[in-house]
Amino acid sequence: MATIAELAGVSKPTVSKVLNGRSGVALETRRRVEALLREHGYRRPDKTPASATLEVVFYGLESHLAIQIMRGVEQVARRHELAVGFIEANGRTAPGRSWAEQLLARHPVGVIAAFSRFTPEQHAQLAASGIPLVALDPTGEPMHTIPSVGATNWSGGIAATRHLLELGHRRIGVVSGPPDYVAARARLEGCRAAMEIAGLRLDERLVRSGRFFFERGRDFGLELLRLPHPPTALVCGNDLQALGVYTAAWQLGLRIPQDLSVIGFDDIDNTRWCSPPLTTVRQPLTEMGTAAAEMVLALAAGETLLQPRVELSTTLVVRESTAPPAGA
Amino acid sequence: MATIAELAGVSKPTVSKVLNGRSGVALETRRRVEALLREHGYRRPDKTPASATLEVVFYGLESHLAIQIMRGVEQVARRHELAVGFIEANGRTAPGRSWAEQLLARHPVGVIAAFSRFTPEQHAQLAASGIPLVALDPTGEPMHTIPSVGATNWSGGIAATRHLLELGHRRIGVVSGPPDYVAARARLEGCRAAMEIAGLRLDERLVRSGRFFFERGRDFGLELLRLPHPPTALVCGNDLQALGVYTAAWQLGLRIPQDLSVIGFDDIDNTRWCSPPLTTVRQPLTEMGTAAAEMVLALAAGETLLQPRVELSTTLVVRESTAPPAGA
Repeated sequence: MATIAELAGVSKPTVSKVLNGRSGVALETRRRVEALLREHGYRRPDKTPASATLEVVFYGLESHLAIQIMRGVEQVARRHELAVGFIEANGRTAPGRSWAEQLLARHPVGVIAAFSRFTPEQHAQLAASGIPLVALDPTGEPMHTIPSVGATNWSGGIAATRHLLELGHRRIGVVSGPPDYVAARARLEGCRAAMEIAGLRLDERLVRSGRFFFERGRDFGLELLRLPHPPTALVCGNDLQALGVYTAAWQLGLRIPQDLSVIGFDDIDNTRWCSPPLTTVRQPLTEMGTAAAEMVLALAAGETLLQPRVELSTTLVVRESTAPPAGA
Repeated sequence: MATIAELAGVSKPTVSKVLNGRSGVALETRRRVEALLREHGYRRPDKTPASATLEVVFYGLESHLAIQIMRGVEQVARRHELAVGFIEANGRTAPGRSWAEQLLARHPVGVIAAFSRFTPEQHAQLAASGIPLVALDPTGEPMHTIPSVGATNWSGGIAATRHLLELGHRRIGVVSGPPDYVAARARLEGCRAAMEIAGLRLDERLVRSGRFFFERGRDFGLELLRLPHPPTALVCGNDLQALGVYTAAWQLGLRIPQDLSVIGFDDIDNTRWCSPPLTTVRQPLTEMGTAAAEMVLALAAGETLLQPRVELSTTLVVRESTAPPAGA
């Protein structure tokens, strides 16, 4: 720490402030110190007590998936006698220190960022503090410097589309997630590939892209189902969009699956609580939580990960929202 | 601690073990020490460091409500720079120490038991350790020794039933939660009271009671809707049961609300993701989480609670699943 202080031309307490995420350090100084800590591969000395906690940061909007992930993280944490911390980083501005500053000050054993986008600065702070970070399915820009856990999104798109093709559908539409989300893009490209492998072509007029919300599914569903030649089946970017399509169909008096087949993605609890139960591509969220927790603990133990990116398999779960097209 | 050890006729390390929830103390000895700690109003001396965490224990089955509660707890925790711990106590048997033992050993600032039933022994352990405990809507037996936060369930039952009566319904059925759950009972009795105030009588043949599951709502819904004189409206014990009734109606080809009005209880996210959107009685879960966190922190600060039981208001949220009965 003395070395870093000397190189940065600051006092040791200033380096300590940067390490502990405390305020009172000019942004430029902080960046210089962080860069030096990284360059020199600084690791928190073992005597600094880490609080016996694994913290999971969720980005608010996808929090309906949170419980399944927390379940997986908790199984690993319990085995290691660690507490599991829950943070929702939804950009609320609250008085006092931000969630990120508080998180750093607590020195958790490790941090799992679930569906969250850490800012490069937050990421640098964590790295500088020696707190391991693993990303769980970053739907945004992949930050290749962070180890991460995801699911095989592209294969999931293939499986969903093949299922519809086998039922006899040809006019297949896609309600996709945001085009700048890698996971959403992979699912959409999987659909396109499955069509092309079958000698067909995905009709771009039947594709819509937007946020992973119920409302987007409903609005895109209404748009697509009101076309002069509407699709007979829709593959959706996630389950919430699929539930939105259910509402669109209901508003237009269309029956699922008789008039329209629908496939979701994720397999959240809600897929079994709708009528009819939803055919969907399951992401193994609990297992992804487990894998992320194990990776972050391996990093905390100073191990090198054999694979910085792990992808768990998605599986098609066929329920009652898919059937052959009318007249097939 | 020396006094307690002497009175209990054990060594100081044994008292310490009991305080810290460690194993290796005979059950009877543990109980004797715990009773003495309680009698003598033992409080953990300030120098014992509590980990800066508020822990929330959920009982697995109601965990779809968890995120809203966690949100409320987290708002308070962040203001106090505390981490929020998440535990799912679903009776899994795992190797090593149980979640309760681990929880005790971590010395959180406080514990919120959400929809969980702590065993009397676990409760005694917490009390003996000086860790404050607040129950969040205990749906089971109320343990009057624990401060608790709930919602006005009875008034919610009244509001739901009055709404149906005002629409013109007279044959109102109830899919209720378990009869031994105080909250479920309060909702049912609220319905009954509203009927009687209106000079009507709740037909017991239209009442079913069972667990707060989707499947119970579906099965009871099928039973009630297949009666020779089926109800024109159903008040449900929670939203999951209401979604089950949706599926029952769908299976029987009945339309909601034209052929059947349905009201839920809780206002979970899913109520907006079904077709039609569900009319329900809102429990202010986030606010309940906030209130529980504030109570547990007050206890941790050595304050006496003015009210050991706080009930927050429920409110009827009218959406599209309720309408006048056919022919009205």
